[in-house]
Amino acid sequence: MTVSGHASSTPRMALAGTRALVTGGAGFIGSHLVDRLLREGCNVTVYDNFATGQSEFLEQAKQSPRFTLTKADLLDTECLTAATANQDVVFHLAANADVRFGTQHPRRDIEQNTIATHNVLEAMRASGVDRIVFSSTGSVYGEPEVFPTPESCPFPIQTSLYGASKVAAESLISAYSAAFGMSSVICRFVSILGERYTHGHVFDFYRNLRQNPTTIDVLGNGKQRKSYLYVEDCVEAILTVMPTANKDVKIYNLGTDEYCTVDDSLGWICGELDVEPVRRYAGGERGWVGDSPFVFLDCQRLRELDWRPSIGIREAVLRTLRYLKANQWVLDRR
Amino acid sequence: MTVSGHASSTPRMALAGTRALVTGGAGFIGSHLVDRLLREGCNVTVYDNFATGQSEFLEQAKQSPRFTLTKADLLDTECLTAATANQDVVFHLAANADVRFGTQHPRRDIEQNTIATHNVLEAMRASGVDRIVFSSTGSVYGEPEVFPTPESCPFPIQTSLYGASKVAAESLISAYSAAFGMSSVICRFVSILGERYTHGHVFDFYRNLRQNPTTIDVLGNGKQRKSYLYVEDCVEAILTVMPTANKDVKIYNLGTDEYCTVDDSLGWICGELDVEPVRRYAGGERGWVGDSPFVFLDCQRLRELDWRPSIGIREAVLRTLRYLKANQWVLDRR
Repeated sequence: MTVSGHASSTPRMALAGTRALVTGGAGFIGSHLVDRLLREGCNVTVYDNFATGQSEFLEQAKQSPRFTLTKADLLDTECLTAATANQDVVFHLAANADVRFGTQHPRRDIEQNTIATHNVLEAMRASGVDRIVFSSTGSVYGEPEVFPTPESCPFPIQTSLYGASKVAAESLISAYSAAFGMSSVICRFVSILGERYTHGHVFDFYRNLRQNPTTIDVLGNGKQRKSYLYVEDCVEAILTVMPTANKDVKIYNLGTDEYCTVDDSLGWICGELDVEPVRRYAGGERGWVGDSPFVFLDCQRLRELDWRPSIGIREAVLRTLRYLKANQWVLDRR
Repeated sequence: MTVSGHASSTPRMALAGTRALVTGGAGFIGSHLVDRLLREGCNVTVYDNFATGQSEFLEQAKQSPRFTLTKADLLDTECLTAATANQDVVFHLAANADVRFGTQHPRRDIEQNTIATHNVLEAMRASGVDRIVFSSTGSVYGEPEVFPTPESCPFPIQTSLYGASKVAAESLISAYSAAFGMSSVICRFVSILGERYTHGHVFDFYRNLRQNPTTIDVLGNGKQRKSYLYVEDCVEAILTVMPTANKDVKIYNLGTDEYCTVDDSLGWICGELDVEPVRRYAGGERGWVGDSPFVFLDCQRLRELDWRPSIGIREAVLRTLRYLKANQWVLDRR
């Protein structure tokens, strides 16, 4: 996989030699970031409990002498503090990202997203590490009233446990920045697509169509509108916003200036697979409790740093699908 | 103490016979609410760990056969679940309210405010209790740019661990409402004053002037502008907003349409004490890290329910002072 072409002209922080801790580094976005940081010359430590991370995603990284792996949970504060010592920056990507089933295990979100973030901040404070980049989510906007939704939209009301746990984590990071002079960047992602994506609608549709190409179940009414970002563009965006914090907190929406419907995406998937299933809709505006029927973020702040996505949503959907077709083990494992 | 006169014409939920759990019920605001609920005919269970609560504040309540006391911590989930069973409503007021020293013990805010709230919500879910009133804070607005600050102001950035932990708690409550059909009311208080207030600027000024009436140290430059609300008006406001949630979450600022400076308040205090100390200012716009130099909330939403405060800030300061003069044990205990 090569880095997608991008038009960023922002002076890039020199990364070579930087010591980076990547929590969730064996996950979908995390492992792409790790590969990229290693290519940039960083020394990278991955901290992952492999709850959803996959060791296969680190095969390339493991070839590097600048790569270290710590298999542990973020609730293990002793191990976390040891892994954080002597780092220059923490990319805190580890999370329970299972948005849809949040109501079935409410404690998981608060433990893995909120308390875990607190533990990361405390480990940083103990070690004097003062730079953090955090993967938040557009879910923090709940069901916004302004589209595209800017970072400064009206104080939102949370509609999902996942969003709530991420707002909590964001708030802790901001407060720690103010209290202890940390430099923090909060990235509010739209849904990310691409190689190594192991859940979400492309994954579900493909797995189900592989079993039964004649009928497909669709959550909600299929008209939910969502933005998506390609994972390599996401990594590029993370590295673009990273240097902008200076003893304060900077917040960025990370997304594209387009959206599609679930039906659109299903159409692209069916076209690629050459199938024409009957679509059975569960009905309702939302796919599940806490699902937002319209996600479209205002990414002006990011674009002012001259970042541009290299590909659009349709191509990102198709690349995800082609990855899954070529890596069936991913589907069988879950 | 009698209930202050008020002009509320909103139909009041019939409270007689209601079974209410009041967390933090031995505290400043909590104990006033408890006394009021008992007067209204409720069955009241106080849940308090007495970290800052005072058993003296419950002397009146203890006379009632409809009063029950549980001395326990909110981190004791077994005890909490037992206390929550068979309640009709939870007034969740327990918190670590020690805003100023948050940076000295960062774990206390997340434990006592965020995790504790999660435990309350889980206990409610386990018991089928679906109504909660939560004491949040104007601190969730960080340092806002809009004055007076409405509930729907731009998505704020947290500047204190206390505010962060309360945002986290608010977010959890909202998400639980959406996921489990709870009826939730979030009250964002300004600073509350009145009888039984055991910390804050009136407490500090009086204690220090009692020791040395010739010199007084003032945090910041004395020009910090703050809103205050009298505790009985606060309780009246809580009962006014309580019935407005119906399987959703309602959010209210609870404050007055006025503010004063620290210097104003110190002047009233010195006048009442008949002292003229030299004022020594620490300097700077903020009293401490995370202090907001201007707190002034837009309380239109509350006023639309025809609630009005019975007294202004000056009178609230003086009543607090007179209470402390008459109850010196409060000052000696801390």
